[in-house]
Amino acid sequence: MEGVDILPHERSKTQFDVDAMKIVWAGSRHAFEVSDRMARLVASDPAFQKDNRSRLGRKELFKNTLRKATYAWKRILELRLTEEEAGRLRFFVDEPAFTDLHWGMFVPAIKGQGTEEQQQKWLPLAYKMQIIGCYAQTELGHGSNVQGLETTATFDPDKDEFVIHSPTLTSSKWWPGGLGKVSTHAVVYARLITNGEEHGVHGFIVQLRSLDDHMPLPGITIGDIGMKFGNGAYNTMDNGVLTFDHVRIPRNQMLMRVLQVTSEGKCVQSNVPRQLIYGTMVFVRQTIVADASSALSRAVCIATRYSAVRRQFGSQDGVETQVIDYKTQQNRLFPLLASAYAFRFVGEWLKWLYTDVTQRLQANDFSTLPEAHACTAGLKSLTTTATADAIEECRKLCGGHGYLCASGLPELFAVYVPACTYEGDNVVLLLQVARFLMKTVSQLGSGKKPIGTTAYLGRVQDLMQCRCEVQTVGIIYSINAAEDWLKPSVMLEAFEARSARMCVARAQNLGKFANPEDGFAELSADLVEAAVAHCQLIVVSKFLDKLQQDIPGNGVKQQLQNLCYIYALNLLHKHLGDFLSTGCITPKQASLANDQLRSLYSQVRPNAIALVDAFNYTDHYLGSVLGRYDGNVYPKLYEEAWKDPLNDSVLPDGYNEYIRPLLKQQLHNSRL
Amino acid sequence: MEGVDILPHERSKTQFDVDAMKIVWAGSRHAFEVSDRMARLVASDPAFQKDNRSRLGRKELFKNTLRKATYAWKRILELRLTEEEAGRLRFFVDEPAFTDLHWGMFVPAIKGQGTEEQQQKWLPLAYKMQIIGCYAQTELGHGSNVQGLETTATFDPDKDEFVIHSPTLTSSKWWPGGLGKVSTHAVVYARLITNGEEHGVHGFIVQLRSLDDHMPLPGITIGDIGMKFGNGAYNTMDNGVLTFDHVRIPRNQMLMRVLQVTSEGKCVQSNVPRQLIYGTMVFVRQTIVADASSALSRAVCIATRYSAVRRQFGSQDGVETQVIDYKTQQNRLFPLLASAYAFRFVGEWLKWLYTDVTQRLQANDFSTLPEAHACTAGLKSLTTTATADAIEECRKLCGGHGYLCASGLPELFAVYVPACTYEGDNVVLLLQVARFLMKTVSQLGSGKKPIGTTAYLGRVQDLMQCRCEVQTVGIIYSINAAEDWLKPSVMLEAFEARSARMCVARAQNLGKFANPEDGFAELSADLVEAAVAHCQLIVVSKFLDKLQQDIPGNGVKQQLQNLCYIYALNLLHKHLGDFLSTGCITPKQASLANDQLRSLYSQVRPNAIALVDAFNYTDHYLGSVLGRYDGNVYPKLYEEAWKDPLNDSVLPDGYNEYIRPLLKQQLHNSRL
Repeated sequence: MEGVDILPHERSKTQFDVDAMKIVWAGSRHAFEVSDRMARLVASDPAFQKDNRSRLGRKELFKNTLRKATYAWKRILELRLTEEEAGRLRFFVDEPAFTDLHWGMFVPAIKGQGTEEQQQKWLPLAYKMQIIGCYAQTELGHGSNVQGLETTATFDPDKDEFVIHSPTLTSSKWWPGGLGKVSTHAVVYARLITNGEEHGVHGFIVQLRSLDDHMPLPGITIGDIGMKFGNGAYNTMDNGVLTFDHVRIPRNQMLMRVLQVTSEGKCVQSNVPRQLIYGTMVFVRQTIVADASSALSRAVCIATRYSAVRRQFGSQDGVETQVIDYKTQQNRLFPLLASAYAFRFVGEWLKWLYTDVTQRLQANDFSTLPEAHACTAGLKSLTTTATADAIEECRKLCGGHGYLCASGLPELFAVYVPACTYEGDNVVLLLQVARFLMKTVSQLGSGKKPIGTTAYLGRVQDLMQCRCEVQTVGIIYSINAAEDWLKPSVMLEAFEARSARMCVARAQNLGKFANPEDGFAELSADLVEAAVAHCQLIVVSKFLDKLQQDIPGNGVKQQLQNLCYIYALNLLHKHLGDFLSTGCITPKQASLANDQLRSLYSQVRPNAIALVDAFNYTDHYLGSVLGRYDGNVYPKLYEEAWKDPLNDSVLPDGYNEYIRPLLKQQLHNSRL
Repeated sequence: MEGVDILPHERSKTQFDVDAMKIVWAGSRHAFEVSDRMARLVASDPAFQKDNRSRLGRKELFKNTLRKATYAWKRILELRLTEEEAGRLRFFVDEPAFTDLHWGMFVPAIKGQGTEEQQQKWLPLAYKMQIIGCYAQTELGHGSNVQGLETTATFDPDKDEFVIHSPTLTSSKWWPGGLGKVSTHAVVYARLITNGEEHGVHGFIVQLRSLDDHMPLPGITIGDIGMKFGNGAYNTMDNGVLTFDHVRIPRNQMLMRVLQVTSEGKCVQSNVPRQLIYGTMVFVRQTIVADASSALSRAVCIATRYSAVRRQFGSQDGVETQVIDYKTQQNRLFPLLASAYAFRFVGEWLKWLYTDVTQRLQANDFSTLPEAHACTAGLKSLTTTATADAIEECRKLCGGHGYLCASGLPELFAVYVPACTYEGDNVVLLLQVARFLMKTVSQLGSGKKPIGTTAYLGRVQDLMQCRCEVQTVGIIYSINAAEDWLKPSVMLEAFEARSARMCVARAQNLGKFANPEDGFAELSADLVEAAVAHCQLIVVSKFLDKLQQDIPGNGVKQQLQNLCYIYALNLLHKHLGDFLSTGCITPKQASLANDQLRSLYSQVRPNAIALVDAFNYTDHYLGSVLGRYDGNVYPKLYEEAWKDPLNDSVLPDGYNEYIRPLLKQQLHNSRL
């Protein structure tokens, strides 16, 4: 069987209802239908073509993005799309642009931090895109540590204005997307100074460019920060640099929902709780986790289809083996497939968490905030790190051809990796989780009951003593014993015990230090590991919860079950040191877990193609010759090659100046 | 302390003789001097400037590389450089070009596989670059499995010629560097067919382009395969596609050192042993391991210097903490620094191994070949995988700014990762190692003594029973006990026992299968882990061996000792599951190992900058604003930004067509 026959044959082996799985993946029939419609709309419109992106120079690339983003907005207006539809359309256009920051950061910042009056003034302008905004927080010298920002906003009561100023080179705003060339306005974060006193970092709406001719306003220096990782990727975005030389804005352009500055320069706390910003944070991180499952599933879809098409070695009857049939390939690929589903479901749960937190905030109940904050911080870190690694692993799983831009994977990797750094560096976030866990453990004695994702720590005494119930006594080799690992309670307890014991051990080690902060600094690498264990437990438990739900569709639940246990058993194997050193499981039980994992791979194998088809991605969105739905890889790779600019002419530019003199031994005369 | 004062201050804390370490790193005073001279030569010549590379479009980029490669050759001739010097000069030019394949693959293939007569005819042409050659092996459908190549070379006795032909699309040659636009000749690998019979895959010298006008010869279709991962990176190279339509070459252009085809089409084995090609393989892989230590050390140098310059959080007296002082940063960075040194020394040892193997081959002693082959395959896999991961980790250690091309790390990653796939896919190579290990274990009973890097398996009975001597009994917390881990014998035994026990366990599991091949396929993921354990043991043991040598220079040995144990203890922690599940160490010993690791980080900390200075890299070679020797990072980042083409004009291309109509609400009229 060759080329275009392979994937249809693979699909004929499917043991479950793929259409039903598509609904499960999308979250609901409605969500599926909106996505499906928007994906087709984009894919069928030549204006959204993107397969030439890696070949464009910076200027061409950027201009092309301006065209697409503007065209997308035009279509959104023409088709009168809902907010949800517009969001999905932009998602499938799949090209970082100034609109991402305008809609994703500028508008929400005004909504979240602006007063009613400010919202009424600015939001209508932003909604119509009569102004374009960005989010200017990060500085050249200051990223994660927002409190360390240097830009100042000094109140001048005489003129009732703030003076925005960049006192040093390191205070230059640096990184904001949409800033470099496009935005007319920004929410700028700066240290508030009134009457000579500092009052922390706050947001200010600052106009950057003239609405007449787009020229930067007086006192404002602004530009693009230059090329970033990868072909295409984030080079479609004008991440910018911005400095202020005593730029004046009216007092009412400080976002004053929480703190107000009066015309005398007095700071007055409003009755709006400060904690509101944490609600926004939960929202933003929930979208990041959803994006992780999208990026990961896209990479996995490409690698899975190509692994079925690609043959290498093991020739029988003159036909080589499909690489997806090798256990080494399955052992690398299937856990990533399982992770895509796992992250999808934990992302779904985070949506619920956001609703829950919002409702509580409205009822002035702040009790769940610290736990929700820690939990979202950890899940953002866990899923983005795993996804970045997984995309690169998928690229390697495609062998040499994964290195071609035509595979789509290099650009996907390059465009995805910043997620590990933005909205909180992943290691810094894990340290926040660890801090919360240590606090939770230290309060156990005082009777304070841990809640939400940390509730299991309330059963710490049981978890310190429990023994894994996977049977090993008297068994030499038995798949029945290995199947003990498929009991939800067994799996959950193993992950809970591991996390609880690691937390307790770290807490005990911290106790040996006279100064807890010194201990925290010294043991921080260990603490990060405990945080990871806790976050992995959350993902496993939410996947197990999902399996308890009513899941319609023939065979769908069985597939999800297989994926859930692949996800968990693979983690168990990867972090075996944790499980063994804490005595949660025995080496023999670990070995049985591995046997079970291999058996699950065999069960997933005939369904692998259908499981990635269930993501319902168009070839346009995938953007990969290797991941084509029809499997017609080689002819299309060959075709694609000739589009490279180097193939415009038979002789390359430079032949006459360099190659010919070299071959003709005339270099001594040549001027190089 | 700010900017340019930080690194001098760091250097003042150094506790060892950096100049002496530079010699150790280079391998000898002579090697240091050659490298130092060539690095400065390249760095001081504006013709070799490379900091604009990421901004160039494909055509410009490629033409620029042609210029540089030709200019480098001109300088090599003018300065009458030795072969060693020329090699180092090309290394520091640091830009993939057709010359890499000409010197690195084409010339060696003729040397290794050509007869005396063929060498006399072709080598002088190649040495003067009157012809430019490449190495055409990989095909669109066939990579690792060389025996599966489809291109045919059919002997036509009537005309005394071979007919080279591409029978299918998948048989198109695909990937060879230098092929797409430059090479005049290629060594082409094809299935030899004479008198209707197949005789395996062999190499043929085929002229591709006219030496007069560089046009492809009749029957030859040739082009570039398109963009690859990253900015700059391998896009300077014309990796090519090539198909043959019954192209005829004289019989004497088959490389016939091992197998000869007579004018009647008879195949005659020469008396040159086939095993010779394994000698070449050892050589090539040794250079790959050396390249790994170069790439890794370069990334580590950038990340270490920037980690000292960058400050974030932990403000004391208004100054934030250098990020290199965080244990989480040290825990990620210092093991990579240690790996750079570890790979350097194992690479040095591989040079010795190559000499040893060559001498034995000349004496018709093939006994050490299988072990040398397995060992080099494993070390190629181990070091390239670790290096690719490490470069990306170093990029992340630089935070957001690591994502800028100006950091040098994106391009370094993109240009390095193919090493994981070429010259043997890394997983396929580990399976070869595993196969060799299983064979070695199975022969232990028959009294066949394992040799070289597998000699320890001869002591398998001891290793199955030994107990790690790190003291834990009666000790609550003691750095003395942790110091047991600094005994070479303790460390070596732990790694030997782990590897031996994993090998034996895998061999036992294989024994449960009726058909060993089925078992090997089913358990291949487990087998790969045993292979990794074996290879890590080799690296650790060669580093320990190095410490036994006489190492001059104040404090140099102490630093190397610290790095050696950091390398080993970090592996022990990362693969704790292996060590615990095989009972090689106890959880308590593992915990002491971690204590020791942290203590070593503190010892390395004041020497970190000097340890990367010892690589002796010029700023030109590093190619990183973040890794600058003078630490003047922020002003230079700011300066660099303005060079982006987007900053050529204040208003971006596309303002009038797209942004203005958008802001002015005139999209309905606009044609997009």
